Amino acid sequence: MEKEEKSSSIEQQMAEQVIFQKVNDWLGIELVENAKIFVGNTFMQPDFYSKADGIIGEIFAHIGKPKKAQDNKISNDILKMLLLEKIEGKIYRKIIVVCDEDEMKKLKGTSVLAECIRQFDIEVKMIEIETDLRDTLIEAQKRQRMVNA
Amino acid sequence: MEKEEKSSSIEQQMAEQVIFQKVNDWLGIELVENAKIFVGNTFMQPDFYSKADGIIGEIFAHIGKPKKAQDNKISNDILKMLLLEKIEGKIYRKIIVVCDEDEMKKLKGTSVLAECIRQFDIEVKMIEIETDLRDTLIEAQKRQRMVNA
Repeated sequence: MEKEEKSSSIEQQMAEQVIFQKVNDWLGIELVENAKIFVGNTFMQPDFYSKADGIIGEIFAHIGKPKKAQDNKISNDILKMLLLEKIEGKIYRKIIVVCDEDEMKKLKGTSVLAECIRQFDIEVKMIEIETDLRDTLIEAQKRQRMVNA
Repeated sequence: MEKEEKSSSIEQQMAEQVIFQKVNDWLGIELVENAKIFVGNTFMQPDFYSKADGIIGEIFAHIGKPKKAQDNKISNDILKMLLLEKIEGKIYRKIIVVCDEDEMKKLKGTSVLAECIRQFDIEVKMIEIETDLRDTLIEAQKRQRMVNA
């Protein structure tokens, strides 16, 4: 949510843009992208947000079985959603959008993260993306793995 | 907290062991190390825990300014502490133990993570470690950076 620390590839950011539009269509409202929400002396920037409709959400444009670092990223975003609720004293509709069946399975499965998702009422929504975009994402992930290997 | 996914170096694990003993002395009670706490169909294993005294905590044996991945790991552990409270309907004393001034500064600073720590009443405790152990940790981190570079 903190854009200054964004480490995703350009392909991932492009995919997130495509998915953001699809989320707008799905919810039928105009969401704000990367809204600055001030908390204490800093701010967070969720992938999508609507104050009027009480929605906060994050998009995960990752393909394939997620690793621990990706799970931790999701935990970090959930914690921030809970922080927003705590600070505003208001319940939000909290949504995590994924574009891959393996990611979906993980978040709906038996892990502690999946249990957090159930207990804290986080909605997990699967949005289909086109095969070309999917292939582009897979290639970008391979490249990142090579760099990080 | 999920030991099967532990990726820290042997040096870090040794340091955590030393710090665990110091935490016992500090709190003056006998804590359980890596207790299995069942949540849903899985379990979490915090670094230290006492059901009777209502304490859950994690130890971060990292030296120097933390990176985003380390922050996310802390977020993940805080989220699990909140999950435990939610499931048991009971407030725990939630503690994060660090052994470095830079880490302490980050967690007490102006980041969103620091705001989460304040808002969710997470205690951050600094435990001093010996210079030799500190140097060993710094060497191990350098080695890990080289592997991941």
